[in-house]
Amino acid sequence: METKLLNTISGPSDVKELSYAQLNVLCSEIRQTLIDTVSKNGGHLASNLGVVELTVALHKVFDCPQDALVWDVGHQSYVHKLLTGRRDRFGTIRTQGGLSGFPKHEESEYDAFLSGHASTSISVACGLARAKSLKREKGSVVAVIGDGAMTGGMVYEGLNNCGRAKDRLIIVLNDNAMSISKNVGALSKYFSTIRNDPNYFKAKDRVGDFLEHVPLVGDPAIRAIRKGKNLLKDALYSRSTLFDEFGFTYLGPVDGHDLHMLCDVLSRAKSLQCPVVVNVVTTKGKGYLYAEENPGAFHGIPKFDVITGHPDVQNSDSFSHAFGLKLADMADRDNRLCAVTAAMKYGTELQHFAARHRSHFFDVGIAEEHAVTFCGGLAAGGMKPVFAVYSTFLQRGFDQIIHDLSIERQHVVLAVDRAGIVGEDGETHQGIFDAAYLSLIPGITVFSPTNYRELSRQLERAVNDYPGVVAIRYPRGGEDEIVKGKDFTDEDYYLQAGDGNSKILLVSYGREFAEVLKGAVQLHKRRISVDCLKLNRITPIPKQAVELACRYDYVLFFEEGIRQGGIGEQFAYQLTQKQFRETYRLRAIDSFVPQGRQESLLAELNLDSGSIAEFVGQVITQ
Amino acid sequence: METKLLNTISGPSDVKELSYAQLNVLCSEIRQTLIDTVSKNGGHLASNLGVVELTVALHKVFDCPQDALVWDVGHQSYVHKLLTGRRDRFGTIRTQGGLSGFPKHEESEYDAFLSGHASTSISVACGLARAKSLKREKGSVVAVIGDGAMTGGMVYEGLNNCGRAKDRLIIVLNDNAMSISKNVGALSKYFSTIRNDPNYFKAKDRVGDFLEHVPLVGDPAIRAIRKGKNLLKDALYSRSTLFDEFGFTYLGPVDGHDLHMLCDVLSRAKSLQCPVVVNVVTTKGKGYLYAEENPGAFHGIPKFDVITGHPDVQNSDSFSHAFGLKLADMADRDNRLCAVTAAMKYGTELQHFAARHRSHFFDVGIAEEHAVTFCGGLAAGGMKPVFAVYSTFLQRGFDQIIHDLSIERQHVVLAVDRAGIVGEDGETHQGIFDAAYLSLIPGITVFSPTNYRELSRQLERAVNDYPGVVAIRYPRGGEDEIVKGKDFTDEDYYLQAGDGNSKILLVSYGREFAEVLKGAVQLHKRRISVDCLKLNRITPIPKQAVELACRYDYVLFFEEGIRQGGIGEQFAYQLTQKQFRETYRLRAIDSFVPQGRQESLLAELNLDSGSIAEFVGQVITQ
Repeated sequence: METKLLNTISGPSDVKELSYAQLNVLCSEIRQTLIDTVSKNGGHLASNLGVVELTVALHKVFDCPQDALVWDVGHQSYVHKLLTGRRDRFGTIRTQGGLSGFPKHEESEYDAFLSGHASTSISVACGLARAKSLKREKGSVVAVIGDGAMTGGMVYEGLNNCGRAKDRLIIVLNDNAMSISKNVGALSKYFSTIRNDPNYFKAKDRVGDFLEHVPLVGDPAIRAIRKGKNLLKDALYSRSTLFDEFGFTYLGPVDGHDLHMLCDVLSRAKSLQCPVVVNVVTTKGKGYLYAEENPGAFHGIPKFDVITGHPDVQNSDSFSHAFGLKLADMADRDNRLCAVTAAMKYGTELQHFAARHRSHFFDVGIAEEHAVTFCGGLAAGGMKPVFAVYSTFLQRGFDQIIHDLSIERQHVVLAVDRAGIVGEDGETHQGIFDAAYLSLIPGITVFSPTNYRELSRQLERAVNDYPGVVAIRYPRGGEDEIVKGKDFTDEDYYLQAGDGNSKILLVSYGREFAEVLKGAVQLHKRRISVDCLKLNRITPIPKQAVELACRYDYVLFFEEGIRQGGIGEQFAYQLTQKQFRETYRLRAIDSFVPQGRQESLLAELNLDSGSIAEFVGQVITQ
Repeated sequence: METKLLNTISGPSDVKELSYAQLNVLCSEIRQTLIDTVSKNGGHLASNLGVVELTVALHKVFDCPQDALVWDVGHQSYVHKLLTGRRDRFGTIRTQGGLSGFPKHEESEYDAFLSGHASTSISVACGLARAKSLKREKGSVVAVIGDGAMTGGMVYEGLNNCGRAKDRLIIVLNDNAMSISKNVGALSKYFSTIRNDPNYFKAKDRVGDFLEHVPLVGDPAIRAIRKGKNLLKDALYSRSTLFDEFGFTYLGPVDGHDLHMLCDVLSRAKSLQCPVVVNVVTTKGKGYLYAEENPGAFHGIPKFDVITGHPDVQNSDSFSHAFGLKLADMADRDNRLCAVTAAMKYGTELQHFAARHRSHFFDVGIAEEHAVTFCGGLAAGGMKPVFAVYSTFLQRGFDQIIHDLSIERQHVVLAVDRAGIVGEDGETHQGIFDAAYLSLIPGITVFSPTNYRELSRQLERAVNDYPGVVAIRYPRGGEDEIVKGKDFTDEDYYLQAGDGNSKILLVSYGREFAEVLKGAVQLHKRRISVDCLKLNRITPIPKQAVELACRYDYVLFFEEGIRQGGIGEQFAYQLTQKQFRETYRLRAIDSFVPQGRQESLLAELNLDSGSIAEFVGQVITQ
C-alpha cells in the first residue's frame, strides 16, 4: 500500500489542511506504516494502533509546539512522531542512533517532555501549565494517559495538585481497557462500569447535539457550558465520576476512533479556561486483526511476520523464563510462597506461577511502591513474598525497600529482572543502577547469577536460607554459551584459574562475567594468562574474594552498571583495607546509556569480550 | 492530676473491663500524661491528643495482637503505647534507649508494623490481611490513616488493590482537617465538603438509632445491613464518596471524640466480612487549648512549658532558617524562582518565601514523587524550581530524579534538609542515605555546606551557575561554633593546613567537617599535626582534592552517612587511580541509626571530635 497522503505531512500544520475524509485516509496510511515498521524493528504496536485517530485529532485541534503534548509512558508516541517531522527517519525507530521509541525533547521540540516510566504525565503537565500561567505564555498543555497508568499512585498526587489551579491543562484519559498485562483492581472495575453503560454512545450523541448550539467563546458562555456540562453528565451517569472529586471538568466518554467526535470534544476542552479531563475510549491494536485479538502480545513485540502475526523468533531461552518456571515449581512444595508483579506478569514470566497458584499470585498494577510494601505486609503475616520486577522500575520502590522492608528486616525476595543493559528501549529502561542503589541498604543481600543453574540455586537460598531483604538480579535475554550449565558452586564467589601463575585477575559479576571468560580465552590465544573471579553475591562483597584478589599484581574489575557507588568502587575500598598496593582498574558505566542492541551497546561501553582483552593488554604494558 | 485509672491498665484487656464513664475518665488521664511527657521530651502532641478516644475505642472493640493495628506515619501511636504494656516506660519516649516515637514491631507485638514515613498503612494492612486469609487465621487488620497522608499516591495504589479482596480489612480515616503543614489540594476540598454538611451529625444520629435495632450476627443479617447502610449513606450524601469507587463499604462520618459512637461504628465494621472504610472526624490537639488553637505548632514540638504553651528554646539558628531566608531574598530579584515543598513548609522554613512570593510557592501535600516531577515540568517550562525536602523523604522521589530530571538534564535544585543524623525520630528519619543515592545519578552535582555562609553561596551557584540537577544537602540544627562565619571559598574543596609538615590528612564534608576541625584542635594539643580537607562539592568529587590527598602518608575519611556506595568509598577508588599506596581509613555508618540526641549518636558512631582524635592516634601508632 502506498502512503501518498502521509508522504505530504512534514509537520502538524499539514494535518490541519486536510478534510475529514482525507484524515481518515491518512489514518489508514499511518496504520500501514506502523505495522510495516514495527514488524521489522520490533516495538510497541497495539498501543499505537489504538491512538491513530486520537493523535491526528490532537494535531488538528492543537498548535504544537506552542501547545505542549505530554505522553504518559510514551510508547504510544509513534503516530505523533510520524506527524511531527520525523516521518523520513521513522524506519530507524528503536535502532542505534535512530529515533527513540519514546518521546524525547532532545529529539524534537514537539516532544514536550521525556517519558518511559508510567504515571508521570499529569505531574509534568501540571508543571508545564503552571509555568505557562506564571510567564503569561499562550497555549494549552495536554497530557495523554492510558487507564493502565492510572493504577500508579503518582497520578493521584498529580490530580490532587492540578485541579485547584486554573491552568489550561487537559488530561486525555485514553481508556483502552488494558494495561501491559491486564488492568487490575478497583479502578479497572470503575472504568468498565462507565464503558459498559449501554446508553453512553447514544447519550453522548445527544450531548453533542445540544452543545453544537451553545456558543463557545466569552466568559459567561463558558460558565454556562460548564454548568450545563455537569447537569448533562449527571444525566449520563447516576453517580459522579472520580475526576469531579479532584476538581476537573469532565468531558466524555467519546469514541476514540471517530475523528469528528474527537476533534469536537478536544476543541471544547481547548476553549475552557480550566482543568479538563477528556475521556476517550479506544481499541488497542485497532485495524490489525492479530493485535486487536491479542493486544497483550502486541504491546511490546519483537520483529514479526505481518501475514501470520507470528514473531520471528519464539524465545523461551531467557533468565526470566528460567525464573518463572523455577518459582512455580518451588511453590508446588511451599504454600507460603507468594508472587507479586507490577503489571509485568508475562515480562517476568510469572504466568506459570499464576496458572498453578492463583490465590498466591498478585498483579497489583503499575504500582511498585505498593508492591514492595504489600510484600512487607505479607512477610510480617508469615508468608514468603517474591516481587518480580524490572530493575529500572524498582527504582520506584527505593524508599519502601529501606523503610518498610529493611529497618525491621522483613523477609522479602526481590527478583530483579532486566538488570544491566536492556537494549532498544534506551535511557529510561536500562537497568544500570540497581547494584548501586540496592547495595547501599543496610542488611540487604544481593545475588547476581551468571547462568540459569545459578539463578535457580540462588532463588532457593534467597527464599529459604537468608533473612531480611534478598535481591537476585539477572539480565534480559539468555545465558551465554560459555557459561551454559556451568556449576558456579554454592559459595559466594567463584574463581576460574588460568595457568596457575597468573598475576592478573579479572573480576566481575552477573552476565558480564561471561564476557570476562570470553576475553580470557582471547587473551589465552595471545599467551596472556589471566584468572577470573566472579562475585556470585555482590552485597555484602565476600571477604575471601577480596583476600584472594590481594595476591595479584593487577586487579581489573568489569561492571555492567553505574560506576559511582557501584560494586567496583566498593571493591576498591575493600582492597585498600587489605593493604593492596598494586594496580586496580575499573571499567563501568559513567552515563545514561542510549538505545541499541545489547551486544553493540556492551561493545560501545567497552564491556564486551574484545574490549576486555584489549584493556588487559594495555594495562599490563603500561 | 493523678492517673489512677491509667495506672491500672497493663494491657488492652484492662481497657475492655471499663464502663463508658470510666473510659471517659481514662481519656482525661491519658491526655494529662501526653501533655506532661511531651512537654518534657518533645515529640508529637496534637495528633495524639486527637486520637485519644479513637485509640481507646479500638482497644475496647478489637483484640490485639490477634487483630492487627497499623498506624500510618505512626506519630499518633502514643496512646496506643500507653494502653499496650508500655505505660511504665512512657517517660522514656524518644530518648536514647527508650520507647520509640513510632510503632515498631521489635518494641512490642502490639505494633503490627513499623512506620515513620507517610501513606504506607493501606499497603501494609493489605498484605497482613491477605496473609491472614491465606493462612485462615482469625482477626481483622485495621489501618488508621489521617487525611494528610491521603495526599500520598501510595494510598491509592493500596486502595486500588485491597477493595477487590474479601479480606477483613478496616481503614479508619482519621479526618482531622490537617496534615503537617496544612492540607492541600482537591482531596482536602472533598473532605471538607463532607465535614461541613450541616446535617451530618444529626443524620448520623438517626443512622445510629436505626442500626441499634438491627441484629448484628449471621450472614443474611449482615447482607441486610450492608444494603441498608448504602441506602442510608445515599440519604446522608447526595453524591457517592471516593471510597465507593474503590469498592469499600463506607461507614461514617462519626464524631471521633464520642466513645460510644466510636465503639458502635467500629463494632459494626468488625462484624462485616469485607473491606470497610470508617470515617472519623477528630480535632487535632483536643483537650489542650494551645494545641487546639495552633495544631501545626504542636504537631512535632520540642520541650515546652505546659502553662504558657511556649517551647523552651526559640531556635532560629539553623541551616533550614538560613536557607529559607536566603531563598526568599533571591526570589525578590528573580521572578523565575519557584519553591516547592511536600507538606513541610515550616520544617523547611519556606514560610518566608511563601509569604513574599505566594504565586511561586507550591505545597503539594505529602507527595514527593509528584513534587520532583512537577519541578521537572516547571523547569522545562522555563522556571527555576527549588524543591526543599528532608533527606529521608526524598528517597520517595529517587526514580523521578533519575527519570524525569536527570536523563534530559532539567535544571532543578534539590534543597536536601535533615541530611545526616537527625536525632530523636530514629531509624525511619535519619538522613544517612542521600549522599550515596544522589551521587550515583549521572550528571548530578551535590554540594554539602558546613556553615550558613557556604550554604548561601552554594544556593546561588546551584540556582544560577550549574545545569541539570543540583542538590545542596545540609543538616538539622545549626552551624558549629568552630565554623561560624568561616569562608570556605568558592572552590569545590577547602584545605586547612596544620603546621605545614603534616603527613596526616583528615577528609570530610558537611557538618562532620566541624567535628574534624575540633578533632584537629584536640590533636594539636597532643602535638599531633593534621591537615583537614573539606569537600565542598561531594559529587563529582573534585579532582584536585584527590591529588592533594595523594601527598599524605595517612588519609582518614569521616563520613556522616552510609558507608556502602558512599563518598568515602568513592574517594578510595579515586585514590587507587592516582597510584596512592599509603594508608586509607574510612569511618562511616554501617547500619540503621536508632533514636537519640544528635551529639550522642555522633559519639556512638565514633564520628564526634573525640572519637576522631582517638582514631588518628590509633592509626598512626599501628
